[in-house]
Amino acid sequence: MTVANLAKFPSIDHSKEDQWAASATTFKPNPELFEEKWAGKIKAYNDTLEAAIPKEYLAPADLVPKDLDSGHFNATLIPPKVLDPETLAITELTAVEIVSKIASGELTSVAVLTAFIKRCTIAHQLTHCAMEILFDEGLKRAAELDDHFTKTGKTIGPLHGLPISLKEQHDYAGHITHRGYVALLDNIPDAMAITPQILYEQGAVFYVRTTEPQSLMHPDSVNFITGRGRNAVKTSMSPGGSSSGEGSIIAMKGSPIGLGSDIGGSIRFPAAFNGVWGIKPTSLRLSGVGSSGAAETTVNFGVMPTVGPLANSVEDLELFMKVYADSKPWLKDQSLAAIPWREIPEPKPSDLTIALVFDDGVVKPHPPNIRAMAEAEKKLKAAGFNVITWEPHRVHEAVEITNSLFSADGNLAAKLKFAESGEPLAPLTEYFLSVGRGDEGLNMLEYMTYIKDREVLRQQYLTLFNERKVDFILTPTYVGVAPKPHTPKYWGYTSLWNILDASCVTLPSGLFADKTIDLRDDTYKPRNKYEEYEYGLYDAEYADGLPIGLTVVGRRYTEEECLKASKVIHGALTA
Amino acid sequence: MTVANLAKFPSIDHSKEDQWAASATTFKPNPELFEEKWAGKIKAYNDTLEAAIPKEYLAPADLVPKDLDSGHFNATLIPPKVLDPETLAITELTAVEIVSKIASGELTSVAVLTAFIKRCTIAHQLTHCAMEILFDEGLKRAAELDDHFTKTGKTIGPLHGLPISLKEQHDYAGHITHRGYVALLDNIPDAMAITPQILYEQGAVFYVRTTEPQSLMHPDSVNFITGRGRNAVKTSMSPGGSSSGEGSIIAMKGSPIGLGSDIGGSIRFPAAFNGVWGIKPTSLRLSGVGSSGAAETTVNFGVMPTVGPLANSVEDLELFMKVYADSKPWLKDQSLAAIPWREIPEPKPSDLTIALVFDDGVVKPHPPNIRAMAEAEKKLKAAGFNVITWEPHRVHEAVEITNSLFSADGNLAAKLKFAESGEPLAPLTEYFLSVGRGDEGLNMLEYMTYIKDREVLRQQYLTLFNERKVDFILTPTYVGVAPKPHTPKYWGYTSLWNILDASCVTLPSGLFADKTIDLRDDTYKPRNKYEEYEYGLYDAEYADGLPIGLTVVGRRYTEEECLKASKVIHGALTA
Repeated sequence: MTVANLAKFPSIDHSKEDQWAASATTFKPNPELFEEKWAGKIKAYNDTLEAAIPKEYLAPADLVPKDLDSGHFNATLIPPKVLDPETLAITELTAVEIVSKIASGELTSVAVLTAFIKRCTIAHQLTHCAMEILFDEGLKRAAELDDHFTKTGKTIGPLHGLPISLKEQHDYAGHITHRGYVALLDNIPDAMAITPQILYEQGAVFYVRTTEPQSLMHPDSVNFITGRGRNAVKTSMSPGGSSSGEGSIIAMKGSPIGLGSDIGGSIRFPAAFNGVWGIKPTSLRLSGVGSSGAAETTVNFGVMPTVGPLANSVEDLELFMKVYADSKPWLKDQSLAAIPWREIPEPKPSDLTIALVFDDGVVKPHPPNIRAMAEAEKKLKAAGFNVITWEPHRVHEAVEITNSLFSADGNLAAKLKFAESGEPLAPLTEYFLSVGRGDEGLNMLEYMTYIKDREVLRQQYLTLFNERKVDFILTPTYVGVAPKPHTPKYWGYTSLWNILDASCVTLPSGLFADKTIDLRDDTYKPRNKYEEYEYGLYDAEYADGLPIGLTVVGRRYTEEECLKASKVIHGALTA
Repeated sequence: MTVANLAKFPSIDHSKEDQWAASATTFKPNPELFEEKWAGKIKAYNDTLEAAIPKEYLAPADLVPKDLDSGHFNATLIPPKVLDPETLAITELTAVEIVSKIASGELTSVAVLTAFIKRCTIAHQLTHCAMEILFDEGLKRAAELDDHFTKTGKTIGPLHGLPISLKEQHDYAGHITHRGYVALLDNIPDAMAITPQILYEQGAVFYVRTTEPQSLMHPDSVNFITGRGRNAVKTSMSPGGSSSGEGSIIAMKGSPIGLGSDIGGSIRFPAAFNGVWGIKPTSLRLSGVGSSGAAETTVNFGVMPTVGPLANSVEDLELFMKVYADSKPWLKDQSLAAIPWREIPEPKPSDLTIALVFDDGVVKPHPPNIRAMAEAEKKLKAAGFNVITWEPHRVHEAVEITNSLFSADGNLAAKLKFAESGEPLAPLTEYFLSVGRGDEGLNMLEYMTYIKDREVLRQQYLTLFNERKVDFILTPTYVGVAPKPHTPKYWGYTSLWNILDASCVTLPSGLFADKTIDLRDDTYKPRNKYEEYEYGLYDAEYADGLPIGLTVVGRRYTEEECLKASKVIHGALTA
């Protein structure tokens, strides 16, 4: 036996792989099966959703355009015109204020939830953000919490009475949990996912489950169960995804805080596209048990899924994260790292070195995002931050590693679900089934090699953070503002931080796309096919008025520092 | 396209797999290649080792049996007969006392190291614990540390001047690092492994690198570079492995504290077999970068490797762990969870519920270990602990999952190394190449299924800990005391806690095998082949006098609690 008789480990040149041009999936839907077995179940699901809408809370027809899917309608302007002053006042409160006012007896849980039910109804009317409405169940819970408070004078936990919206994906005991797969309309979990369970034990009130795209794999919202969700600031545009409904419901203030999930940008896209806050934590801090995708009998740790909140303020994200960590979630989910929440002081700008990503070296951002980064540079410098330019490092390779690991099973888990229902494939589903290794998947030795390369990449980034003396990176969240439905493909600005498992906070920059200044540069020569496609999406007219969300990135496990820094950075950007 | 056209994920019945009977590896050594290319390098390596021994410190010949590899010679009794009083006094100090006396100026680093060099020389003479001797390099470093202290009045860190022995496996800059593979005699790393590097920065002095078995895969010490290491308490018996030399050098007090590694029991076997302390931490607390096995271009996260210290007291393990965590190792190794060291109070016995493993349901322990557990039950109850019996849970399945994940690459990385040198395979190497999936390895879908099953198993154990209200498990570390060389195979009592990634502290029970009472039960009917083999190994005569090491097991990331509890448990056991 010599070395020649043995197989060798593969050596993979990530820079030469071109997953953009990967062969399309050979998988095909089955229209007959879909019609025969599933169309009725989909109708029943939508009928239930429709029936649960309290019609008395809908915005009057004269305020609502006939066609919400075209044109330039800003849905966030409607609730203030429709709601009574008390409801408006309550729904403008932050989560921090809400739990404080309930704990002091100034507000009841029922009053708070009733206000959010009213505003949520309008949010759903305009953005189609809900997949399941649980208002009755929520009101019952709120009444029980009030009863407890009246009897004992005490809250049951630090989230007592706080309405929290949940992305549909999270297992909900006794209710259909389909995760954007038609075939899962038959799936009714026995138990709550662990993260919602923890929030519930801390006093949260659940009342709405929000929309997501087919298979959870798009930075968009199209699915074949409830159709598409809409962007809150411009209803014709994409709310992002896959936590689509969380982005729009939070922007509408139909929920004070919501629970999303993120494996490639699924919290950050909707936060950025709708102009709200979101945190994608390091993977081992929050439980994903019961919040998975299609895979039921397998685990792929190649790219780690995460769950996390979206809200309208950094303080609300902090509240969520602190309460969650304080509950010692690692005693419920063995996979979590036992990391207590650290109380840290707010840094001074001069304590922080911020590295700015103007271009990731693969796809140049659109004009609004370029302008936002340039503005950020000016404002951060003026506020006293140390500001440097982040030289991109192996982003193309990182995306290749991410996509290949993501598709390690040849997308078998997803395709088994699609095959079960025969449902159509949305264009972005077809796309995501084709990137990376597509149908082929990885073999065992390739997988182990990719994992090693991922570890090397992570170590290189930590070294760069250390050598460049960088505290945080500030980066565009996507190449542009909210795109048209069915279009966003390049996820390098977000998925890079998933493969690196970094702490990320997405924040509203305070800036909006402006068609008068964010002009398309038609002389620009794309450097590659990724860029050619994405730059081709830019339309100043459609971008106009949409919020520009930026993302603060820290080392792994720096959620505490990342949130505090984001607050200070946001302060400087919006000063 | 229907479901029938798609492959399915495998469903694996772990209880039916019988890796004990897995087909033997087809891989064969290449004696010609070995002789031709490597025999000379092995000789040169041993010549260097031999030349570095300071002959003036050897124990006199009349105290040393001619044949250390048979009979009942207890090497730990020799140093006190040979060493001068000052050397003896210094080498009897704990690591905590050493750093304290150096920091106060009572002892110099050179004086401390000189004492340990003397005792280490005897340790190596009797147990063959060293693979590389670095006395000159160590003395130079110690002198530099003394110089710094004299000039500044300060230590460079909390480990200032502390001699630390290193298992050979850890990358050592500029020195051959072979990890028990002959082919790696050509491997000279540029940089230190991260964990030794951290220890060095905290003030540690390196002076000896210790022995390990071929390929690091045995609970024994046989290798084809330096031969076998010996048990300190009975030199004819196995010191355990794979941190073989660390077990014997610590028992000999030729080192106050040493760095081992553990992926299936490799810290705990040597600690138990030589009667010393060892901690196998949860995997993401200490860096394994540069401390790996054969794999250079791949990572297998199926069973997580760990590194950790062995020492003569629990306080020394605590010192190591605290100093290490306080150095923020996650800023050096991105893979680590950022978990600060928590100072916690010592528990009262009545605060703790200890669950005892009398039998893991697969292989019944040998008579000395049964007696030790029965004694533990009595003593812990008398000391006021809440004591229950731990009902074993799916141990056979856990071992099957462990072995299969361990061999996911079909042992390709190891076999490529063996093929490169053509070296012979020790019997235990042949064995470990055959368990699990052996040459076959796993395919991608099987691997993902095994990982899921592993996660389910971990969650089941956490649930059992919670439901049974157990703080810690106390378990035999192996079925018996130190076995004869080439023999120990069953690793279920240790590897169970690797697949679960639990915190483990191995401690000396204070009891020793006693041939007059630990009688073999020849009427016992083995329940399976594992047990038939292991029970067949028991020999009361050879076991006689060997220490019985037990292991305290906690939930993941409970190193702080586990160490404090181990101290209290050890106190009760040895009262």
